[in-house]
Amino acid sequence: MTNAEKIVNFMFTNDAFSQWLGIERLRVAPGICDLRMTVRNEMLNGFAIAHGGISYSLADTALAFASNAHGLKCYSVETSISHVKPVVEGDVLTTVVEEKSLSRRIGVYHITVFNQNNEAVAFFKGTVHRSEKSWEIA
Amino acid sequence: MTNAEKIVNFMFTNDAFSQWLGIERLRVAPGICDLRMTVRNEMLNGFAIAHGGISYSLADTALAFASNAHGLKCYSVETSISHVKPVVEGDVLTTVVEEKSLSRRIGVYHITVFNQNNEAVAFFKGTVHRSEKSWEIA
Amino acid sequence: MTNAEKIVNFMFTNDAFSQWLGIERLRVAPGICDLRMTVRNEMLNGFAIAHGGISYSLADTALAFASNAHGLKCYSVETSISHVKPVVEGDVLTTVVEEKSLSRRIGVYHITVFNQNNEAVAFFKGTVHRSEKSWEIA
Amino acid sequence: MTNAEKIVNFMFTNDAFSQWLGIERLRVAPGICDLRMTVRNEMLNGFAIAHGGISYSLADTALAFASNAHGLKCYSVETSISHVKPVVEGDVLTTVVEEKSLSRRIGVYHITVFNQNNEAVAFFKGTVHRSEKSWEIA
Repeated sequence: MTNAEKIVNFMFTNDAFSQWLGIERLRVAPGICDLRMTVRNEMLNGFAIAHGGISYSLADTALAFASNAHGLKCYSVETSISHVKPVVEGDVLTTVVEEKSLSRRIGVYHITVFNQNNEAVAFFKGTVHRSEKSWEIA
Repeated sequence: MTNAEKIVNFMFTNDAFSQWLGIERLRVAPGICDLRMTVRNEMLNGFAIAHGGISYSLADTALAFASNAHGLKCYSVETSISHVKPVVEGDVLTTVVEEKSLSRRIGVYHITVFNQNNEAVAFFKGTVHRSEKSWEIA
Repeated sequence: MTNAEKIVNFMFTNDAFSQWLGIERLRVAPGICDLRMTVRNEMLNGFAIAHGGISYSLADTALAFASNAHGLKCYSVETSISHVKPVVEGDVLTTVVEEKSLSRRIGVYHITVFNQNNEAVAFFKGTVHRSEKSWEIA
Repeated sequence: MTNAEKIVNFMFTNDAFSQWLGIERLRVAPGICDLRMTVRNEMLNGFAIAHGGISYSLADTALAFASNAHGLKCYSVETSISHVKPVVEGDVLTTVVEEKSLSRRIGVYHITVFNQNNEAVAFFKGTVHRSEKSWEIA
């Protein structure tokens, strides 16, 4: 395992909510995180589509994994999301992370959530603060 | 029940994810929605704090309920959130909605998420598109 | 001139502030708008770099031109910008617009501002409301 | 002069663009900055209303002054604005800053822009990174 994979493996193993979402890791590297999950009935809202919190949570997990995979502990400081296409039960969502900017203390990420037809369903933007603490995984 | 309460009651009854979150409605009126929920172990992330998606989802439910309570079907077009204080297991979160602007087709909302000590844990901003369709609840 | 160019030509001719900024149009088409401007001394702030409002204004003009170029009158409902690299006097800024989503009433755009070295200096995201009114240019 | 006023005085004296905007300082204190400006013809866009960059720039100046007034050099990392009411020539705009959160390295601010009738015309949200460098003004 690379150091990035070790860090994300440690984070994921302790991330009960990402596990509840059924998130799988397809690829992890510094600044990169491809995830996948399937939308279940209990994730729907009163419009019979996925609650906005589902796509947000998936993208937020991708943000945390991609940014921490560089080795410094990172914390989200601001995130936004535009939901542009309805997500329904059974849809298989994946993430594509673009690291738009990485300075000493700040990282900026665009994360697109796609469905199984390669249609973008949400555009997420996240800014993280990169702390001075390194991940030390045995 | 007021019309606002009828609409939100209908939305909530069909909102499986808000129910999984354990959301309770404290007050609902046009443009207003006070919610409450308790953070459970399965909502935590790899930092042993609530996943960012939890506060987001609570605020997003409040946005949907508050904006739809006016009677027109509303859809989120852009939302953002700043997580400013860690949320831990057992914390009781509540929402306060401020309707900052309401025009014919667009609504803008600030939603603050508080913990049980009245400390703000997240600042959420949501913009909705107000469609031409009215809620018709029997 | 295409209809898109006629609309943007009309908007630009009446846009005193974009003219003050020294904005030139390099390319205009439905959903597309490449602009260029040079940073002057009077655009700097107290850190001797371009005021954040300069990159914002350039990107906001690109948003207005790109979205209106489809033919419907569009109004900004939410915009955000991350300034990731300092801009200094004499820098030549250009915009690249990506139309991420276009539905009947809502458009979502990512606009990147580059300097003369092809370095991204700002990431802008804009959401517009597409009204029912068409542009009618003689 | 307080230290906050000294810092902001230094910033303002060197801020050519804020001076071009005609910004006046009404009140400055740590985390607080009330500003005022009058909208001139050269600030309008092709809709004959103030360009979105004008309200943004005013609020962005308020963000810089309010956050730096604490004594640490601060840099904007993410800002967003919703323009909710048209601004026309002759309007007198003022800012009200709310410091929503201030941690060691991050500050979060809501800034409302009002017109002369006390109507909110724009809602701005800004996140700054507080660097380790202090302002040292003679």
